[in-house]
Amino acid sequence: MKILLTNDDGINSLGIYALYQELKKIGQVSIVAPETEQSAVGHAITLSNPLRVREIYRDGSFYGYSVNGTPADCVKLGALVIFKEPPDIVVSGINLGPNLGIDIIYSGTVSAATEGTVLGFPSLAISLGTRRDPDYSFAAAFTKGLCLKVKEKGLPPGILLNVNIPAISCAEIKGVKISRQGKSRFKDTFEKRRDPRGNVYYWLTGEIVREEENEEADTKAVDGNYVSITPLHFDLTSYLSIRGLKEWDISLKD
Amino acid sequence: MKILLTNDDGINSLGIYALYQELKKIGQVSIVAPETEQSAVGHAITLSNPLRVREIYRDGSFYGYSVNGTPADCVKLGALVIFKEPPDIVVSGINLGPNLGIDIIYSGTVSAATEGTVLGFPSLAISLGTRRDPDYSFAAAFTKGLCLKVKEKGLPPGILLNVNIPAISCAEIKGVKISRQGKSRFKDTFEKRRDPRGNVYYWLTGEIVREEENEEADTKAVDGNYVSITPLHFDLTSYLSIRGLKEWDISLKD
Repeated sequence: MKILLTNDDGINSLGIYALYQELKKIGQVSIVAPETEQSAVGHAITLSNPLRVREIYRDGSFYGYSVNGTPADCVKLGALVIFKEPPDIVVSGINLGPNLGIDIIYSGTVSAATEGTVLGFPSLAISLGTRRDPDYSFAAAFTKGLCLKVKEKGLPPGILLNVNIPAISCAEIKGVKISRQGKSRFKDTFEKRRDPRGNVYYWLTGEIVREEENEEADTKAVDGNYVSITPLHFDLTSYLSIRGLKEWDISLKD
Repeated sequence: MKILLTNDDGINSLGIYALYQELKKIGQVSIVAPETEQSAVGHAITLSNPLRVREIYRDGSFYGYSVNGTPADCVKLGALVIFKEPPDIVVSGINLGPNLGIDIIYSGTVSAATEGTVLGFPSLAISLGTRRDPDYSFAAAFTKGLCLKVKEKGLPPGILLNVNIPAISCAEIKGVKISRQGKSRFKDTFEKRRDPRGNVYYWLTGEIVREEENEEADTKAVDGNYVSITPLHFDLTSYLSIRGLKEWDISLKD
């Protein structure tokens, strides 16, 4: 099993290392990951700058390739340039922090898996539900099992899996829920500050606001101590709105 | 009508200027746009850098605000910080080049309108189907009419309109089609080069590949000389895949 492994926290993160160690047990793992953290880059790709690929070593042996670009760049370069054979699966993660609800539209972790899917490979985005003191061991072991399951069952074309794992001990996790993307989101605020020269600047900050959610929502699953798996696609069309819009009867002369 | 106007080509682009001139006729237009080109940034937001807002003047009078960030940053800052009153509509464009098919997942123009929708405002993404010698006049006039239509009819919550206008004369345009996102995409290749010091780097390049499309596809509409309007949302769930995945019966022990 040829596994293309990437992330958005960067090649030096512990989350990708945990996956590397675990996935090596079931296949040939090739890392192509951003050289620096790329959180919240969404589905950015690099058109205006040259991309550079570097070999990264760990403990004296080859570990993987770093790219001065985004998670989506890494998947493109990995699949199209660096490796001679296409991967059997693309895995992105383990992200430090959840990717749930509306906020997945900003996620570099999810975008890497989306890119894998666009290129035709079964793809997984893996996130751990904490931003502090992460223990990646269960999440990595679960991902290994899920890769085998995906290999056995196959994913429909155009579908990726967005996997969120609660940051609790394995014994406390109640099971797996197939979920839908929830409506919760980060409610933004900007902190206004002044730099040492007196000029104003802003930091984006805020907090998660849990909307009232359907029982099937990804956030409900994780809050209820379940692993959440949401099938995603990249068709953004709102089919339900097409008929209503046709009735608007928009003309060129409006 | 309070119009928040942004784009991904940057505040100095001609496309946003054409919209500004036209939309001034129907409302109060406030520009908040990236200070530099931000094409293909997807739905990136800036978490790791301070954002700065600058006043930009044209012909001796105030034109708008520039931000050292992404289109989504601009919409957030415009709606949450810069203006006291919320906009009635968010308009993003006019983009130099189409935003059709799968490639809309990379689009800064579309992401700005998505951000407007996330924040609760009716939002439009406007693109012109050429990258050379653009004539924005019809696209700008059409957008003005569409803004009035959106004001009259209202958009359902969570829905934005992705508008693509063929780069032909107004007389050649056959009408308006309400479409769905097509399957065509940019087929990537990487050009391998060496810098003056002999180090390898890559440029992302490639060409549009037109997939065989459904008659309803956005690409079909534009290729047939129609204005294409696709209703989009940010729920990426593939509902069709949920049942099949439930049957996988994934356990924690896999």
